Amino acid sequence: MARNVERRAALADAGLRVLAATGARGLTHRAVDAEAGVPTGTASNYFRSRDALLGALGERIMERFAPDEGVLAELGAREPSLELFVDYLRYIVERTTRQPDLTRALIELRLEAVRRPDLARVLGDTLRRGYRDDVAFHIASGLPGGAFEVALLHYAMDGLLLDLLSTSIDAGFDPDEVIVAFVSRLVGGATER
Amino acid sequence: MARNVERRAALADAGLRVLAATGARGLTHRAVDAEAGVPTGTASNYFRSRDALLGALGERIMERFAPDEGVLAELGAREPSLELFVDYLRYIVERTTRQPDLTRALIELRLEAVRRPDLARVLGDTLRRGYRDDVAFHIASGLPGGAFEVALLHYAMDGLLLDLLSTSIDAGFDPDEVIVAFVSRLVGGATER
Repeated sequence: MARNVERRAALADAGLRVLAATGARGLTHRAVDAEAGVPTGTASNYFRSRDALLGALGERIMERFAPDEGVLAELGAREPSLELFVDYLRYIVERTTRQPDLTRALIELRLEAVRRPDLARVLGDTLRRGYRDDVAFHIASGLPGGAFEVALLHYAMDGLLLDLLSTSIDAGFDPDEVIVAFVSRLVGGATER
Repeated sequence: MARNVERRAALADAGLRVLAATGARGLTHRAVDAEAGVPTGTASNYFRSRDALLGALGERIMERFAPDEGVLAELGAREPSLELFVDYLRYIVERTTRQPDLTRALIELRLEAVRRPDLARVLGDTLRRGYRDDVAFHIASGLPGGAFEVALLHYAMDGLLLDLLSTSIDAGFDPDEVIVAFVSRLVGGATER
């Protein structure tokens, strides 16, 4: 069983490398087999359809974005404040820009899902769970703001990451300055909706 | 000459329909010819390479997002304020969500450009020009905030549009409420950077 879980993860990682190299264009079960160095037919055994394969990539991306427990413990030991909130976001940017292909792949999957209702279902579950987890974590952490602020930051950070990881508008501002402004204004500036 | 400009635009529009239907996957010169109902080889005549074709789609998207002069005149006649700023953003959301495939296509092109330096060059020019035009328009309009606030809103709105036009996190808030919060907090809440 553990063996299967590992194999599944290894296949998904191979799929993410194919996606990064060729786009959704080149992502076939056969290409995943080749990239993973496994016999032809293996990926089809684990992911029965193209939608199942794409959906599994989405789940795998979220797994690989999971924060490091040690870093979380360090952050969690501090007093909740806007500064701490900024550091959490910095850590998100660190994780996502360190693995740029994963963030790009997630956006690519979201776009592909517009054309694929089955993928939209799987990926929608993954994204909704991610947002709900973020809100729950946020509330437990005692950080300022609530679910609305988490949503605002989610959108704002997605747009910033798109700019950092694809063709940029080259506005010329330091991304860190942007993150600080997002938190201080979107959360700190919360007076009314 | 005018004929050529029209034909080029019609071919680019056909390319955008192909991109929406199949993703970058199905976008070939031949598919564009078929979609436009022109003889095979026509698209290749106008766009010499795949990068030239993709780059032309980016330019065409920006053309088609151009605001209506009448609406602009109406908005421009009002006193600059945060409320007016919100209405400008509402008008952006109206234009982009009315043509959802165009916004998706632009994101898809930005991701594709990561793998294609020639496309990155063309698309980068288009996006940088768009941002510079936004800043110039903003300054001329007398709206509150400056280039930094235009950049913040650009990122924030890109993330919101991604959520509206692809698989959503389903946070459950009214997009209009989100837009109002973006302007009132990111621009109205500007005390320091």
